[in-house]
Amino acid sequence: MNENRNCPRGTNSAESAVTGEFPHSRRAYLTGSRPDLRVPMREILLTDSPGGDGAAKPASIHVYDTAGPYGDATLCCDIRSGLAGLRENWIAERYDTETYSDPALLSEKSNCAGRGSGAGAFPVSRAPRRSRSGGNVTQMHYARQGIVTPEMEFVAIRENQRREGADTQQQTPHPVREGGMSRPAVITPEYVRSEVARGRAIIPLNINHPEAEPMIIGRNFLVKVNANIGNSALASSVMDEVEKMIWAIRWGADTVMDLSTGAHIHETREWILRNSPVPIGTVPIYQALEKVAGVAEDLSWDVFRDTLVEQAEQGVDYFTIHAGVRLEHLPLTSRRLTGIVSRGGSIMAKWCHAHRCESFLYTRFEEICEIMKAYDVSFSLGDGMRPGSLHDANDEAQFAELKTLGELTRLAWKHDVQTMIEGPGHVPLHLIRENMELQLEQCHEAPFYTLGPLVTDVAPGYDHITSAIGGAMIGWLGTSMLCYVTRKEHLGLPDKDDVKEGIVTFKIAAHAADLAKGHPGARLRDDALSKARFEFRWKDQFNLALDPEMPQRLHDLTLPAEADKAS
Amino acid sequence: MNENRNCPRGTNSAESAVTGEFPHSRRAYLTGSRPDLRVPMREILLTDSPGGDGAAKPASIHVYDTAGPYGDATLCCDIRSGLAGLRENWIAERYDTETYSDPALLSEKSNCAGRGSGAGAFPVSRAPRRSRSGGNVTQMHYARQGIVTPEMEFVAIRENQRREGADTQQQTPHPVREGGMSRPAVITPEYVRSEVARGRAIIPLNINHPEAEPMIIGRNFLVKVNANIGNSALASSVMDEVEKMIWAIRWGADTVMDLSTGAHIHETREWILRNSPVPIGTVPIYQALEKVAGVAEDLSWDVFRDTLVEQAEQGVDYFTIHAGVRLEHLPLTSRRLTGIVSRGGSIMAKWCHAHRCESFLYTRFEEICEIMKAYDVSFSLGDGMRPGSLHDANDEAQFAELKTLGELTRLAWKHDVQTMIEGPGHVPLHLIRENMELQLEQCHEAPFYTLGPLVTDVAPGYDHITSAIGGAMIGWLGTSMLCYVTRKEHLGLPDKDDVKEGIVTFKIAAHAADLAKGHPGARLRDDALSKARFEFRWKDQFNLALDPEMPQRLHDLTLPAEADKAS
Repeated sequence: MNENRNCPRGTNSAESAVTGEFPHSRRAYLTGSRPDLRVPMREILLTDSPGGDGAAKPASIHVYDTAGPYGDATLCCDIRSGLAGLRENWIAERYDTETYSDPALLSEKSNCAGRGSGAGAFPVSRAPRRSRSGGNVTQMHYARQGIVTPEMEFVAIRENQRREGADTQQQTPHPVREGGMSRPAVITPEYVRSEVARGRAIIPLNINHPEAEPMIIGRNFLVKVNANIGNSALASSVMDEVEKMIWAIRWGADTVMDLSTGAHIHETREWILRNSPVPIGTVPIYQALEKVAGVAEDLSWDVFRDTLVEQAEQGVDYFTIHAGVRLEHLPLTSRRLTGIVSRGGSIMAKWCHAHRCESFLYTRFEEICEIMKAYDVSFSLGDGMRPGSLHDANDEAQFAELKTLGELTRLAWKHDVQTMIEGPGHVPLHLIRENMELQLEQCHEAPFYTLGPLVTDVAPGYDHITSAIGGAMIGWLGTSMLCYVTRKEHLGLPDKDDVKEGIVTFKIAAHAADLAKGHPGARLRDDALSKARFEFRWKDQFNLALDPEMPQRLHDLTLPAEADKAS
Repeated sequence: MNENRNCPRGTNSAESAVTGEFPHSRRAYLTGSRPDLRVPMREILLTDSPGGDGAAKPASIHVYDTAGPYGDATLCCDIRSGLAGLRENWIAERYDTETYSDPALLSEKSNCAGRGSGAGAFPVSRAPRRSRSGGNVTQMHYARQGIVTPEMEFVAIRENQRREGADTQQQTPHPVREGGMSRPAVITPEYVRSEVARGRAIIPLNINHPEAEPMIIGRNFLVKVNANIGNSALASSVMDEVEKMIWAIRWGADTVMDLSTGAHIHETREWILRNSPVPIGTVPIYQALEKVAGVAEDLSWDVFRDTLVEQAEQGVDYFTIHAGVRLEHLPLTSRRLTGIVSRGGSIMAKWCHAHRCESFLYTRFEEICEIMKAYDVSFSLGDGMRPGSLHDANDEAQFAELKTLGELTRLAWKHDVQTMIEGPGHVPLHLIRENMELQLEQCHEAPFYTLGPLVTDVAPGYDHITSAIGGAMIGWLGTSMLCYVTRKEHLGLPDKDDVKEGIVTFKIAAHAADLAKGHPGARLRDDALSKARFEFRWKDQFNLALDPEMPQRLHDLTLPAEADKAS
């Protein structure tokens, strides 16, 4: 990462199409209690109000920015060298970790499909880091000891979005009747610590992913959005996936899951991690399955454990682990219309059936915790029994697993391992509340992370919309992060346009939830945009939009003249 | 309307692009108690289930069809002669109406902007019909006398969607916890009558629009969707608007509002009405304003009354009338961020301000009722004070008007005039319930007809989505009809693609609401599609979709081979 003026043309592979500043926007940093704690924001500059109604109009609005260094026009990002390690010093200063020279990722056997072939290894290698002598380096561990880390302070500044400086006189607060939050008007580092300590929020940050900018997932904070990317045996190269990740965070993805299958899983992930300023999640069983040539029955604890360590050493920030798929619950799916649709869930169900015993994910859960806490990888406890259709929503199989996930949450917390819970799926509007209430109760308020849910099954090709409706609703009721769904869901792999559309759609759902939860300051941007609209300040209206390009383009179709945008 | 084989090529102007059957679908008719009572449905044919799980799979699914004669491949529709008068006999048989020879529409003065110029008059003219000697010919009037009309029977058959014949064993009913309805499992004509009689539902059907197929708007029935079309001084011809109407009903618009302004308002409406099988709504004040050259202060009761009669004679099925904008409520908007954004509302506010008196829409309301009942035009009481931003949602101005609309509903009902109430607009998720509850209480359960609402203001260019989220929610809670919003909202006039996308998006919202309300049989289509998906019957999955083209196209991008769709 260098000054842009020194960046030779062509080396910035992540340039132009997927990066670049938004119109009338600039990168701002808010510095915390130490000079290397600089929190990025996007500052949207407003034009002068034409009418002048006496009220002082703010000159700019600060918004949450997930774009990382790619959103800073003064920086040059060469994806072949990766991003700078923002958190390297913070991690080192704690003196509780060490680098080591015989990592699993180097000693990996050739049975790791795709290793070394094709895409090429990431050019820069470094020794992985782990906790010293079996210690615990999770943010939850620190939080429970009363330690406020720089990561927690970063998160607090980030969540406030510089609201303190904004003119809040304009905001007529709406009374919040449902889904309200118990949180202070201004987020403090100490508040972040307390939420992480009690498990109500997580800061997914592997110590081997120092490039990541801290962010928090919890229902007393802004609702977050995850974007899935990943290549398959069929399509897309490693570079496509890196570009897709950078594209996703440009539009607001708070975390990215790499769901790659097929060849080059390891390399793809390495390229993504080294270039990602947002936490990266994976489903390790996918890679484990590649290692046993796709035969679920051949999976074993050893293969899975090695995969976890390999990915932890690379820096994956959270693992989806389907440890709640229990042998005794499998018969509960017999009355379903669509069986088990979770890929991880069906892999484990197949294994359990074949071996007639409980899965190693469940029986070895505390051994998994030992790995998680040595690197600070967070759990995303997978819902392998999630419904694949409205018909199967809220059934016995789903809720039996949810109960198990609650038990596992307690186990993870015993080890101070950060944990969130994955949720459905396909749920009609009137059954969404039950999902949320049961999750809060049975999983002890651990953050909920849902896929949609889709509120109808009759609109393939529009499932970004069917799921954003459910997402807004469940986000309002308390879900902490929404996994986006693109219009290609059920139909194919999303391309760049689908990814952008999916993220913008889910930013709408997440923001609608923030507004409905009465999140302080959530309406600042809405009010600024509405005021611009009322005063015919077209450019401000476009620039304040979640996607400035779309309204500009649509408006130009009717009134292309430049003059029409100023009045 | 003739047999297709007799239709000379070229005369069917509404052919090809905007009509034509959907793949693997055919038109079916269910005949009622008399041979001329034939209710159209779309029958979607399913392929054979490959696996064969023992359960009998239905061979087809019947779905509600708004496409009218354009959805019947055996018919030829020439838009220059218009559709057949389906209801002509039903109206004539009641012997309570008469045709007359000096209609307002023929005696209209030249101050009716655009009359006779440009587009050309509709080729076929007929004498309008009105009630005999000041009588009342509304469906509500009949209903209150205990008369079950053919229109009511038509509606009952239509709402049931031939569910009686479907295999309901597959349906595990979900318990309905909120927003549930009080309605029988099967809709009977008598039930329709009782709902219309008590004002909880309306059947908008002007006696001068016999081409319209009866449909019902009420919260114990399927949630309906309205699409707005209309040309402006700037763009689009009369033929474009007719084509847009036919396109809108192909995708499921239950009613269409013609919001034309500028020249040729009268002709455009005539072409639309004569070719529309769905009820048409208008905002008569728009045309009245054209007649006074756009100067709101020059409006008068006389101009407005003549416009109402002119449009009633043409066959408009419901009028948006902003009679709730009262002089004393105007100061309540002073603290708003975005003032009065309803066009009709701001016209009337300007008039009230200029004349310093109550608007003629309010003071002459019972005279308006006299016109409505002579033709059976339904009221859509406009919300001239609706919020134009989240900031202004649920404020004093909005709710003061709602209370007035409740008083006017009582007045309309005194005259047995069918009435629905228009609602917002821009409302955050947590304030939607208050809108619905107050509307039910203050407007005595008259049907609610809302525009969205948009649940955030930060996404211009995606307002079909921001509003579908609010639409699904308020539909679930009891709104009877949702006015679609396209992605061009706030930005420009929608083109054909925008119209289709807007309608499909709102069909999703309406269907999600039907599911959440526990509407009997609502999940049949979802279950059939989910089963097809689970069994990899791709073609069935596409054909059962709200938009069969989109999933087919998206799937083809990844796996274009025909063979991939059968397995």
